[in-house]
Amino acid sequence: MTALTLYFCPRTRGFHALWMLEEIGEPYDLRLVNIRDDIQSEAYAAVNPMRKVPALDVGGELITESPAICTWLADRFADKGLAPAVDAPGRGSYLRWLFFAGSVIEPAFIDKAMSRETPRQMAGWGDLAAVKASLIEALDGKEYLVGDRFTAADLMVGSTLNFMMNFNLLERVDPFAAYVGRLVERPAYKRAMARESELAG
Amino acid sequence: MTALTLYFCPRTRGFHALWMLEEIGEPYDLRLVNIRDDIQSEAYAAVNPMRKVPALDVGGELITESPAICTWLADRFADKGLAPAVDAPGRGSYLRWLFFAGSVIEPAFIDKAMSRETPRQMAGWGDLAAVKASLIEALDGKEYLVGDRFTAADLMVGSTLNFMMNFNLLERVDPFAAYVGRLVERPAYKRAMARESELAG
Repeated sequence: MTALTLYFCPRTRGFHALWMLEEIGEPYDLRLVNIRDDIQSEAYAAVNPMRKVPALDVGGELITESPAICTWLADRFADKGLAPAVDAPGRGSYLRWLFFAGSVIEPAFIDKAMSRETPRQMAGWGDLAAVKASLIEALDGKEYLVGDRFTAADLMVGSTLNFMMNFNLLERVDPFAAYVGRLVERPAYKRAMARESELAG
Repeated sequence: MTALTLYFCPRTRGFHALWMLEEIGEPYDLRLVNIRDDIQSEAYAAVNPMRKVPALDVGGELITESPAICTWLADRFADKGLAPAVDAPGRGSYLRWLFFAGSVIEPAFIDKAMSRETPRQMAGWGDLAAVKASLIEALDGKEYLVGDRFTAADLMVGSTLNFMMNFNLLERVDPFAAYVGRLVERPAYKRAMARESELAG
């Protein structure tokens, strides 16, 4: 068995990985990282030179970037049913939405948070109007992004949308509100929230 | 066999996927998309509502986002040796760098191109200084990012760094220059460049 250790700070994007670990349901250790001081230490630079959480140590190998952590966990614990298999239909769409969360949704919303625009031709992420239109189309008449079941792609996209709603960058309207509402009812989400609250003290 | 059709426009980030298809070496069709007009059509919205290239049709399933396309191809054609297997050591690092290209390198360089800063605490991508430091560390004494062989992670990271060098956003200094210089010597890169030049007319 591979030992899993999550470097985490409450109330950060580290939550994506915490929720994913709760979905997986295997034992894991938590290392709390204070993002004001610990994260600047030399010790943490060896974990993630970006000086960001989360990072997941998997038996000595370090994985950074939340969607990379989620993709790895879903494939490694394939019996949990959180990813289409490599050769299965839906695998391409699944990967599409996993990458969409960090490369497209995140920078498009940060442009909004900063009240700025990036020219569409320059930005790989297009713009926020196209991001919303794409998600509305993807969720049209569907509960989840890929097939008819929850996958790690929903966790990453849903958790990112939830984060943007909590910062008032995304309006709580459907289909986003209904989609996120469905995801936060999951027992693993609730366990992760409880754990985070406890750690935030 | 799965039919592969790439929606592509020369001189865009679509090149990442074109290069990857040449690395894979399986037959594929190309559909040229003019990014000034075709991309605004209703027909193209059905391919990618983000109105971006590339997109890859794999037997009727559409994959967008360059690193998703590369990840899918590397796993689907595993015999080409462009990805560590799902259960192999290095898989976590491999995924980390694949996600790093679009979620971290891209937005950090676009901030530079736009002569702006995003507060580190707000941006998932940290900042450009940390991005460069992370890559310098990852390439220290190594030819490739993961293990001792070329993977799709090198293609995505290297192609993105090459793109930034071509736009004078990244200085042609080592280790970046040496790394990119190694990658562009690959026969598949040269074939993709020749194909792109021919298509650009």
